[in-house]
Amino acid sequence: MHVVPPALERLIESFMQLPGIGKKTATRLALNLLRKPAENSRQFAESLLNLHSSIQLCSCCFTFSENDPCTICAAANRNSELVCVVEEPGDLLAIEKTSSYRGHYHVLHGVLSPIDGIGPAEIKVRELVARVQNGTVKEVLIATSSTVPGEATASYLIDVLNKLPVKVTRLACGIPMGMDIKYADKYTLAKAIEARSTAK
Amino acid sequence: MHVVPPALERLIESFMQLPGIGKKTATRLALNLLRKPAENSRQFAESLLNLHSSIQLCSCCFTFSENDPCTICAAANRNSELVCVVEEPGDLLAIEKTSSYRGHYHVLHGVLSPIDGIGPAEIKVRELVARVQNGTVKEVLIATSSTVPGEATASYLIDVLNKLPVKVTRLACGIPMGMDIKYADKYTLAKAIEARSTAK
Repeated sequence: MHVVPPALERLIESFMQLPGIGKKTATRLALNLLRKPAENSRQFAESLLNLHSSIQLCSCCFTFSENDPCTICAAANRNSELVCVVEEPGDLLAIEKTSSYRGHYHVLHGVLSPIDGIGPAEIKVRELVARVQNGTVKEVLIATSSTVPGEATASYLIDVLNKLPVKVTRLACGIPMGMDIKYADKYTLAKAIEARSTAK
Repeated sequence: MHVVPPALERLIESFMQLPGIGKKTATRLALNLLRKPAENSRQFAESLLNLHSSIQLCSCCFTFSENDPCTICAAANRNSELVCVVEEPGDLLAIEKTSSYRGHYHVLHGVLSPIDGIGPAEIKVRELVARVQNGTVKEVLIATSSTVPGEATASYLIDVLNKLPVKVTRLACGIPMGMDIKYADKYTLAKAIEARSTAK
């Protein structure tokens, strides 16, 4: 018997296409919208419809932006000699939230993953190399994730960039702020010992 | 500086209006949609727009339905003498999934909560009483949640319904299936002992 109304079922399926949302959560979210005034759903729908039409990739750093170049690339008060390479626009937002980075970015839109058929041509590597060859970039800070594909991508980029006249740096690895030493995993702890700095 | 494009920000805010979705999750979901083809977002928007226009409340049991009466109330092979009272349409769906209930339903659309100004008039109590007074209902199974407001609502309904010529029953309380006795909380365990049944 068809207990769930088809219109509700379709919305549940739309929610289920999102990462980390299963049938139970999708049902809960859809029922929540159904209980609220129709105006809420209309606004939600409008923000979805506007999403792709008003957002494009910045032609310089490839982040999502309503303008080209994006506000970061266009900003006069940011250091264009320093470029931070990240996997996804979400990583860029996380770094921006720290308010401690004032350089530019380069979004790869993925990581190298030979098993999935993702090589250097599938992510924005060629564009990064061209940007460095243009000459204004003095330092590339590689900020890929500390995962196996993230590390593999970093290694590849280091190989490629070291052939160019540019300084290549990486994010520091170590103990997260506020973490008890005894709960740190041994790999992180080993990295932290290896990369120890002089106490000031 | 405005790093998040306004169109993305608006979608993030739409997601944040849903229960259990904070800024981080909302950002992750919105960025996920942005990476997918625009067609996905369009379909999602359409399912949102169709939601309220095609779904109404069943005039008999008050669940969400595209037809009136709903498929359950209209079904010839279900027992209309047994009515299960639930708080929300989501509870109805959970009971339907068990495939072990063949009666009708009555959705209250809330629980009694004097602090929030929700009395019997704000939920579908009057409609339930009218339905019982109509005469076809022989048993009302109260299936409100085992929470403080759910229990209060159940007590109130029992008081009201016991004045009418109808049998009033409640869901059994006890140890959940597959649960280790030593992990059951003491209130559940006490209920299970009190409501023990003859072994067969």
